Amino acid sequence: MKEDSITSWFSQQSSACSDAFPIGIGDDMAQVRGGADGTVLITTDMLLDGAHFDLSTCTPEQAAYKAMAASLSDCAAMATVPVCAVAAVALPTGFGEPELKQLHAGLVKAGQKFNCELIGGDITKWRHTEGRFAINVTMLSRASGYHPPVRRNGAKVGDIICVTGSLGGSLGGKHLNFTPRVAEALAITKVAKIHAMMDISDGLSTDLNRICKQSNVGAVLLAESIPVSDAAQKTENPLESALHDGEDFELLFTLPPDEVEKLPELASVAITKIGTITSNGRMELKMPNGQVKLLAPRGYDHL
Amino acid sequence: MKEDSITSWFSQQSSACSDAFPIGIGDDMAQVRGGADGTVLITTDMLLDGAHFDLSTCTPEQAAYKAMAASLSDCAAMATVPVCAVAAVALPTGFGEPELKQLHAGLVKAGQKFNCELIGGDITKWRHTEGRFAINVTMLSRASGYHPPVRRNGAKVGDIICVTGSLGGSLGGKHLNFTPRVAEALAITKVAKIHAMMDISDGLSTDLNRICKQSNVGAVLLAESIPVSDAAQKTENPLESALHDGEDFELLFTLPPDEVEKLPELASVAITKIGTITSNGRMELKMPNGQVKLLAPRGYDHL
Repeated sequence: MKEDSITSWFSQQSSACSDAFPIGIGDDMAQVRGGADGTVLITTDMLLDGAHFDLSTCTPEQAAYKAMAASLSDCAAMATVPVCAVAAVALPTGFGEPELKQLHAGLVKAGQKFNCELIGGDITKWRHTEGRFAINVTMLSRASGYHPPVRRNGAKVGDIICVTGSLGGSLGGKHLNFTPRVAEALAITKVAKIHAMMDISDGLSTDLNRICKQSNVGAVLLAESIPVSDAAQKTENPLESALHDGEDFELLFTLPPDEVEKLPELASVAITKIGTITSNGRMELKMPNGQVKLLAPRGYDHL
Repeated sequence: MKEDSITSWFSQQSSACSDAFPIGIGDDMAQVRGGADGTVLITTDMLLDGAHFDLSTCTPEQAAYKAMAASLSDCAAMATVPVCAVAAVALPTGFGEPELKQLHAGLVKAGQKFNCELIGGDITKWRHTEGRFAINVTMLSRASGYHPPVRRNGAKVGDIICVTGSLGGSLGGKHLNFTPRVAEALAITKVAKIHAMMDISDGLSTDLNRICKQSNVGAVLLAESIPVSDAAQKTENPLESALHDGEDFELLFTLPPDEVEKLPELASVAITKIGTITSNGRMELKMPNGQVKLLAPRGYDHL
């Protein structure tokens, strides 16, 4: 009964309070109190060894941290408050209790920054020797109470497009240890009305395209305004890297011009205005010489 | 942008009403209205090709059906009402749009029996050619309103132990097309007070042991009362098969003797009394000749 002893260990590590979580780890389901509005939000993310991280160059703890942080970044993308997560793993041959405890450490490390409790999970093992590690995190959040969850489909013509932080070159290291912009999203929406927001996971060009498509608008970006990361500066084409690399886990959002002045000064990260929402349905990139080019969504496609 | 076109297709298939699901497929998170008591319950299950099903002998639709049905069985195990699910998949090389549509069909087939909406997901793909199909389903349910969610830790000395249906031999076929006992669990808890319940996924002996451990009690089963399935009857040792095979996805529950007479006649499946909860902390099996043997938890261990 190795599985039950691990489940029991996981349960003992939990500090989930019984008011917020009437039923915790170790039953058929966990029970969670929702937000004051009677709703919860949910996101699920599957991360695979060899695709989203590589266990030949990172630890199980780092992989689990990334999985949890990626879901936290989804909570940030909606400007919602993380509540709890469940994690399911597919273990390769040779993984046992030590690796499970490392995975637990990574999940908790990411979650505890935002009071996001691990309240359940599932442990499975591949039967074939080539089976590689996979981890799925499903997270629940609640509305902040002062700003509705920010969707992708609310961008309006004339909106200013902003991003947090700098973009590109995340695979050089940031993708394993980034801080999800949960606090920043909540701080921004506390003082400004945001029309559309998401986190940049598949690349600025691909993710902005999603906002444009869902909002039925276009966008023009100013090439010289795009914040290029130090890691991207070292690549052959820093601007391309910032536009398409992905895994930045920064916030991409649009808001009316008269809301821009309300944006807070964040201690953690800069907010940069990078363009404007347009009516023509196209994504465009305005170069420093004034030339306007079409901007294609050339970020990451999971298929 | 193949991924976006698939996501869009998934979204178009959805009939989730906007009152229950203010935000559906296609955003960073979906939004779900919880139960009247302000809580939701959550379960997550990872199923792997080669471990929980075998795609060389079953279809992607069957695998997805099983994944969704296993989570529905967890809802049944707590006597709660399924609300919605998110599904994440890791696709092997060669899987594309046709397989994704088959997976969708399997998920919807299982969910729609119980008005359980698919409201989100994640699609990923293995980079190595040996990567096999994995599917994770996370499901939310709500309390029934007439009986609290039934936990594993509430069994009391003197309780009668019951199961639905018959046990053993599920791997012969039932494990791919079983009907989760959602309706039965709700019907039972509508008329009788249940102390402890779970679904039998890892085998009667292993799952009853979980109820005993968590409830700090023992149990004695009557060998001749255990309902052995037709499939198990064909095996070398039908009783052993019924006790340990697992994947029955039947309900295992305990209730006070004076509640037993309230149990309903179910049109779908029989309810059988198989034993009694005891105070000695042991699991025992009483044979037809009167001999009492220790019953070890010898069901499936995922590790």
